[in-house]
Amino acid sequence: MVNENPLILKRGLEDEEGAMLLQKERATSSVRPEAMATFIFGGQEALSRRLRALAFIESDPVFDTKDRNYLDQKSRYMRSSEKVVHLVLKCRRLGIPFTQMLDILNVALDEITPTDVHTKMAIPSLMHQTTPEQRAKWLPLAENFRIICAYAQTELGHGSNVRALETIATYEPSSQSFILHSPRLESAKWWPGGLGKSATHAIVLARLLLGGKDRGLHSFIVQLRDLRDHTPLPGVTLGDIGPKLGFMSVDNGFCLFDHVRVPREHMLMGLAEISPDGHYRKRKGANGGEKILYGAMLDVRAGLVERGGATLARALTVAIRYSAVRRQGYAPSPPGKLSQSAPLELQVLDYPTQQHALMPLLAWSFALQITGQFMRRRYKAYLRELDLSLLPEVHALSSGLKALTGEVVSQGVDVCRRMCGGHGYLLASGLPEVFSNYTAVQTFEGTAQVLEPQLARFILRLSMAPTERPKGSGRGAATAAKAPFALSSDFDYVPLAAGKTFVRCRAATPVAFLDPAFQIEAYEARVSALLLLAREEVEADLRGGEGGLAASMMKNGVLFGRLSRAHCQLVLLRRFHEAVAREEGRVTMTTARNGGLDGEGNGGRIDRGAADGSEEGESEDREGSVTVGPAEVRVLRNLCHLFALSGMERDMAEFRARDYLSSGQAEMVSREVLRLNRTVRAEAVSLVDAWLLSDKLLGSALGRADGRVYGALFEEALRSPLNDKEVSKAYTLHWRRLLMAGDCAWGNARL
Amino acid sequence: MVNENPLILKRGLEDEEGAMLLQKERATSSVRPEAMATFIFGGQEALSRRLRALAFIESDPVFDTKDRNYLDQKSRYMRSSEKVVHLVLKCRRLGIPFTQMLDILNVALDEITPTDVHTKMAIPSLMHQTTPEQRAKWLPLAENFRIICAYAQTELGHGSNVRALETIATYEPSSQSFILHSPRLESAKWWPGGLGKSATHAIVLARLLLGGKDRGLHSFIVQLRDLRDHTPLPGVTLGDIGPKLGFMSVDNGFCLFDHVRVPREHMLMGLAEISPDGHYRKRKGANGGEKILYGAMLDVRAGLVERGGATLARALTVAIRYSAVRRQGYAPSPPGKLSQSAPLELQVLDYPTQQHALMPLLAWSFALQITGQFMRRRYKAYLRELDLSLLPEVHALSSGLKALTGEVVSQGVDVCRRMCGGHGYLLASGLPEVFSNYTAVQTFEGTAQVLEPQLARFILRLSMAPTERPKGSGRGAATAAKAPFALSSDFDYVPLAAGKTFVRCRAATPVAFLDPAFQIEAYEARVSALLLLAREEVEADLRGGEGGLAASMMKNGVLFGRLSRAHCQLVLLRRFHEAVAREEGRVTMTTARNGGLDGEGNGGRIDRGAADGSEEGESEDREGSVTVGPAEVRVLRNLCHLFALSGMERDMAEFRARDYLSSGQAEMVSREVLRLNRTVRAEAVSLVDAWLLSDKLLGSALGRADGRVYGALFEEALRSPLNDKEVSKAYTLHWRRLLMAGDCAWGNARL
Repeated sequence: MVNENPLILKRGLEDEEGAMLLQKERATSSVRPEAMATFIFGGQEALSRRLRALAFIESDPVFDTKDRNYLDQKSRYMRSSEKVVHLVLKCRRLGIPFTQMLDILNVALDEITPTDVHTKMAIPSLMHQTTPEQRAKWLPLAENFRIICAYAQTELGHGSNVRALETIATYEPSSQSFILHSPRLESAKWWPGGLGKSATHAIVLARLLLGGKDRGLHSFIVQLRDLRDHTPLPGVTLGDIGPKLGFMSVDNGFCLFDHVRVPREHMLMGLAEISPDGHYRKRKGANGGEKILYGAMLDVRAGLVERGGATLARALTVAIRYSAVRRQGYAPSPPGKLSQSAPLELQVLDYPTQQHALMPLLAWSFALQITGQFMRRRYKAYLRELDLSLLPEVHALSSGLKALTGEVVSQGVDVCRRMCGGHGYLLASGLPEVFSNYTAVQTFEGTAQVLEPQLARFILRLSMAPTERPKGSGRGAATAAKAPFALSSDFDYVPLAAGKTFVRCRAATPVAFLDPAFQIEAYEARVSALLLLAREEVEADLRGGEGGLAASMMKNGVLFGRLSRAHCQLVLLRRFHEAVAREEGRVTMTTARNGGLDGEGNGGRIDRGAADGSEEGESEDREGSVTVGPAEVRVLRNLCHLFALSGMERDMAEFRARDYLSSGQAEMVSREVLRLNRTVRAEAVSLVDAWLLSDKLLGSALGRADGRVYGALFEEALRSPLNDKEVSKAYTLHWRRLLMAGDCAWGNARL
Repeated sequence: MVNENPLILKRGLEDEEGAMLLQKERATSSVRPEAMATFIFGGQEALSRRLRALAFIESDPVFDTKDRNYLDQKSRYMRSSEKVVHLVLKCRRLGIPFTQMLDILNVALDEITPTDVHTKMAIPSLMHQTTPEQRAKWLPLAENFRIICAYAQTELGHGSNVRALETIATYEPSSQSFILHSPRLESAKWWPGGLGKSATHAIVLARLLLGGKDRGLHSFIVQLRDLRDHTPLPGVTLGDIGPKLGFMSVDNGFCLFDHVRVPREHMLMGLAEISPDGHYRKRKGANGGEKILYGAMLDVRAGLVERGGATLARALTVAIRYSAVRRQGYAPSPPGKLSQSAPLELQVLDYPTQQHALMPLLAWSFALQITGQFMRRRYKAYLRELDLSLLPEVHALSSGLKALTGEVVSQGVDVCRRMCGGHGYLLASGLPEVFSNYTAVQTFEGTAQVLEPQLARFILRLSMAPTERPKGSGRGAATAAKAPFALSSDFDYVPLAAGKTFVRCRAATPVAFLDPAFQIEAYEARVSALLLLAREEVEADLRGGEGGLAASMMKNGVLFGRLSRAHCQLVLLRRFHEAVAREEGRVTMTTARNGGLDGEGNGGRIDRGAADGSEEGESEDREGSVTVGPAEVRVLRNLCHLFALSGMERDMAEFRARDYLSSGQAEMVSREVLRLNRTVRAEAVSLVDAWLLSDKLLGSALGRADGRVYGALFEEALRSPLNDKEVSKAYTLHWRRLLMAGDCAWGNARL
């Protein structure tokens, strides 16, 4: 057996060098990871919650992920089922409440489970779309996992365009029930997680037919399987949709209904109701319910942005640690002399190309985390106050941000893998798993092509009806009265867009680009130029009379995508600067810590939203926590600069539109990015340490906190199923036939 | 059982609509796929060879790939082993010669096999690095698969920097043998395909130690396993390195040597020899051998470029056909009325955003195919004439092209997947498999970070020693005498770079950008600006005296990467224009078909290399083939324009450097790209049809030639291992415990 080979056993302990290199990186960094962690996770309390959840998982071998790389689809589904059941039963035993259990499931388990949709989509629907009686019946069943409820919206032939869904629910007053039916193959529900083999029920979106009239989409809670033996109920055809790039641990399913009878009370009637005799009525105050639902989607999207930051940080933890440990190039042994102690090769992390690939992504991980947390806090404030005035803005923004995050993080994770060279391609690097799962974000719940026009249309409309829109300084409160909805200062550039496109950047030296006001001006100029161009195109189309706004939006979809991304980057930059400014304020005014200084020192650009957003984080971490000090704040400031300038470099053509930046200024930006890369590189290992991702969670031989990369790679290799026998069955069954064929039956061991 | 469900059986035949849509696309296209295929594959003869190879594979069920998505690592290795053995034995039986067998293996089998390295790396080494006696002994053994030979270069701790390899071969005159040894864990050979469980031998790169003196890297043929029973020989520790993102069908392996004795005659002595008493001597004329080896690498890289084009075409075949079949958006049923024949949704392919993602990639697939074939023809000419004068140029170019191709194709395949929406994420789409395997190109045999500086350095050196370089028109022949090596006109811009950066583009209308000369000027201006900037940086560094050229190259690595990519795109554009011009020449001058008009009508920009390159293609397809006509040539011309302009749009910031393009011209380019996208879209289905990828080869439910997408998706889903039982074991073992826990043992089937 290979793994009893003394040669390997003896050598497995040799790679001290990686350990030494990471120690050096940590010793020379000015960042204290534990302080930075408090910042990243939004205060000591949130951090402690997170650590408790992680400890819950990591102390229990059932939750181990060591077997992951070696399991096929079926085994992965079995394992994830085992994990959920064990987790829920254990929490039940220990008296851990539902919300805390969700923390553990979502943050710490590190597994996409068959019940994710049950907890994230079905339960919120049961909470917000139901009548009190329905809620009283179904919610406890769902929260206690006495039923498992899929959320069945998407159909085989219809994704984002929900208006085209084909499943029909025909109300039959005589039996007081709906007849649920899938008219053709393309109407099969397709994709819902947990639907294939796990769910007992599903919330099914179907077109309600009432006395021959189409009342549009409604939700029904439909039982799928017998509760005694889990067999599908009559008329229900269920199954798994097959293996996927990722999400192997989930039974994404299909479901066809053949005239399935559903009791009247199983329509979710929080928003509209049907009387026994088939009278349809919108419910009073249902609007609020719809908006709460709407808000729930915002929470999901905020979570996607935040999770995007964390996912990127995870891939970066692997890539940055490995880049510090891996040596390559530039120090060959002198020819003609062999020395075991030949001059060492360089750390890969010292290559400017490596830094250029990784450091801007590190800045992105912080930007996304900060912005995701901000969105989540805003959502909570929104729930608390039911102040709906900012809802249209926030909803539009969340569409654009979801799309942008999906793109940046997916590509970023793939970059991290490639920056690990060949070894990144091994599942043992942990990176293919991260990519394969995360990239689903790019297609589920709307692709960029579907989402970005939503934000772009919002911006365009603001710009096209200037009389209805707030002018000038956007402090929402002042303008909410005039406008049908409030607007944060993020949109200040809109009414001024035309003017901004004649501005030229005044930066004469690289250092000028390190002024936040300068950066925000640049991002505003860029988005303004795109907006102006979009407006010109649309106005020309409307004058041409070939269809309305929708047709023109479709025609100019590429441009609208750019507009959406540009706006989102402006918002990310603002949130990043605001967060850093807050920390700067804290650090410089330690004596006035509880005063009202948060957010000052940011060029007066703090808006109402930002101030709102900071509240909660504040109140939490007054005592007993390690907070960010001057050194960490300096690093955060540099990360923020790098976010700004690397974004400018990446989309330089847009910043050069209408010559806002000159060719020479563009070169300056590139030079400054290289300098910032070097600066951040010095702190990079400590910065990823601050995300507190344990070796267990990372599941990566390359990303080990102790730097013992090569021994870990070997250990993983020895676990390859192909190594279970010294001579493979492939030899006995196949290769032997070739090697020994014909006249060449080897009589000798050696040639 | 799900798959006996009559509901599904009945409905499986319903999706006629996809068939109808693809028929419509084909009927309205002006491209005849069979004619275009002749162009794509370089003539009727090459096409016929290809089709014969495909028929060989597709007629035999052993080679089927239907099981692929459901197999784990071990089973995939077993299957690929079975396929190779079956293929070789069958060819042996049918008397098919080795080279033709390789065609079948490499082009048609559609499987990455454990013997790919044996045939692509080891056999060429045995051919070119050996003495005639060694050749006579080893080559027949290898070509007949009586041995399987891995190629063991890369080590666990060392990839591209071969100078740092640690494996040692110490010559011992007393026993006339080498002692092969891996001094530490990091020196383990790591990654070679087939090394883990299949190979009997390996060509091992090791540092030759001779009387205490390091003679640098040499190759040794080392027996690894006993030929009677396949057990590893004493001192050899072998194994598989574990599961990977792709390449699951190959046993990439590791190998550690513990003082393994290798006979003197097993050093490959084609280039240098050791006498029995340990006297070392470079062989006379060995230089030629080295250059042939060098050439072999070029052939591999040409193959990578060509395969890149074909891989992209494969992903595009799926994405474009599915985009034609898939409908989404813009035609909801009117509210309040339900109609089974509601107005149809739009074909996704009609969205400009979809076109913008896919059409430029379609242009790339042609550009890569054309250029890869050109490189391959040049390699053959090179072998024929042993004219080495262009070798430095070609080698440098191949480095840059390998890196660029890997990046564009990997990302392009991923784009194709995402453009299929959620369904692209299913393995049944066939796309994850393509991505997972192809993306390995980005890291194996040198990452972009390692390769691009090689081309950039070549360009930089040309520009820095102008007195030694040919000036003006680069027709290689004229200048070869003066220069140490010849140079094609691809580098004409180099001596003129400084001048070019003051030029401004004169295009005043979008149509002006459709002039090939204009496009080439633009690409030359762009690469010139990068070159000039690079030179300024390097000269400043050299003046500053902080290290030499190597240090400055490292410092400016990001810029040098851009320079490499810009040059490669210029070359791709030139080859594309030349190829189209040749076809235009043929079509317009049908009467003078055999005359010397090839390549005319291209603004006089055809260089010697291009003329060389066209020869072979010519001589092949005179008779009996369907050749490209005026309609196809027009489409090719548009594809070429799209390649040029979408490339400009993508890297617009570089084309705007030193204001070569103005902001307004940049907008024109974007508009023109959208127009070209629409034009190419009309031919898109026929253009992918022309790659002649059968449904079997595609292995994609979404890419079916007949458009019956939804039925195929269902059929694939029914094959999911999770569907083998109606009630999953996950229920019996796990979910049941949760659903029925505590006080809630369900007595009833329904709630």
